[in-house]
Amino acid sequence: MYDERVPRLWNATIDEHRRTVHAAILDTTAALVAEQGLAGVTMSQIAARAGIGRATLYKYFPDVEAIVVAWHERQVGEHLAQLTQAASADAEPGERLRTVLSTLAELTGGRHQPGTAPVGHGPDLAVPLHRAEHLHHARHQLHALLTGVVRAAAEAGTVRTDVSAAELAAFCLHALGAAADLPATRAARGRLVDVTLAALRPA
Amino acid sequence: MYDERVPRLWNATIDEHRRTVHAAILDTTAALVAEQGLAGVTMSQIAARAGIGRATLYKYFPDVEAIVVAWHERQVGEHLAQLTQAASADAEPGERLRTVLSTLAELTGGRHQPGTAPVGHGPDLAVPLHRAEHLHHARHQLHALLTGVVRAAAEAGTVRTDVSAAELAAFCLHALGAAADLPATRAARGRLVDVTLAALRPA
Repeated sequence: MYDERVPRLWNATIDEHRRTVHAAILDTTAALVAEQGLAGVTMSQIAARAGIGRATLYKYFPDVEAIVVAWHERQVGEHLAQLTQAASADAEPGERLRTVLSTLAELTGGRHQPGTAPVGHGPDLAVPLHRAEHLHHARHQLHALLTGVVRAAAEAGTVRTDVSAAELAAFCLHALGAAADLPATRAARGRLVDVTLAALRPA
Repeated sequence: MYDERVPRLWNATIDEHRRTVHAAILDTTAALVAEQGLAGVTMSQIAARAGIGRATLYKYFPDVEAIVVAWHERQVGEHLAQLTQAASADAEPGERLRTVLSTLAELTGGRHQPGTAPVGHGPDLAVPLHRAEHLHHARHQLHALLTGVVRAAAEAGTVRTDVSAAELAAFCLHALGAAADLPATRAARGRLVDVTLAALRPA
């Protein structure tokens, strides 16, 4: 599309501009969905709120669902990055396990500012999201990450060894999903992590 | 619709006939969805397999989604009845809690015969099911049921009291969801129930 003789610097600027617009579209859509639910959000609304023309918006995304999936994909990527960082912290294995579980509980149940947590939890969003390939992949990555952390803690003697690290990791992932049903407070999430860790303790 | 002068016995027979056809439609649809996924199933297929005419089928349900929702509603009702029975068994509270958790794990992860478990778990089904009002209601009933069982066990000293019975019940419901990710064996479900119960033990 771009003339190849255009200087590199110019291309870099265009790329940056595209990324900025892309991000603004995702942020705007997330905020609108959080405010009024997926069903009510239109491409025209998104364009207006993002301060771009409708034609421009359609160059980036074909419909609202595609934007929501892209937004969710970005969220999942950011969450995985956060968890990977927590998992590689310089601490003893048991402490690292607690940090990872706390981060997971927070990502599941915390942060109900507009534009973040409500998207991805509302029933409205189940339609586009359950079709998203990236979710399946991300769940696998998450399970692998947590299995490693649990295994290290088991080898250090902090976690039971009568059940495999993979099964315990699956248990933790599901158990921490309860954070979505609890009061969105640090105390409630702390209790959930404590209860989950109690299940993992050696007999 | 029926002539009021028709004898009662005749009405009863018609009612019974309708119930039989209704159940056959649900069973047939569940089997077809399990075999080939929701997307491929048509009303014509269902009618043919159930041995009724298409016009008759449309007198019962407007579309495949409506049948799947009705099927799922029936399943949920049956599961709640099973759990209610487990919860009212004549046993000491700790034992009753274990029975209820085992039943839940089995309902979540067991029984992969065609026509039972795959329906309601496949991603295909998320579309009709996430809209189903009855699921929300059933989750509430399930949570209330389990909270009662956990509270009784806490009062008997078998379960920790530093976290509320309602929060522990939410924890259990989510944790036992891991049964869907485990091997569909009694042993794997037994380990999951053991790990879950370990989380609930008093410190």
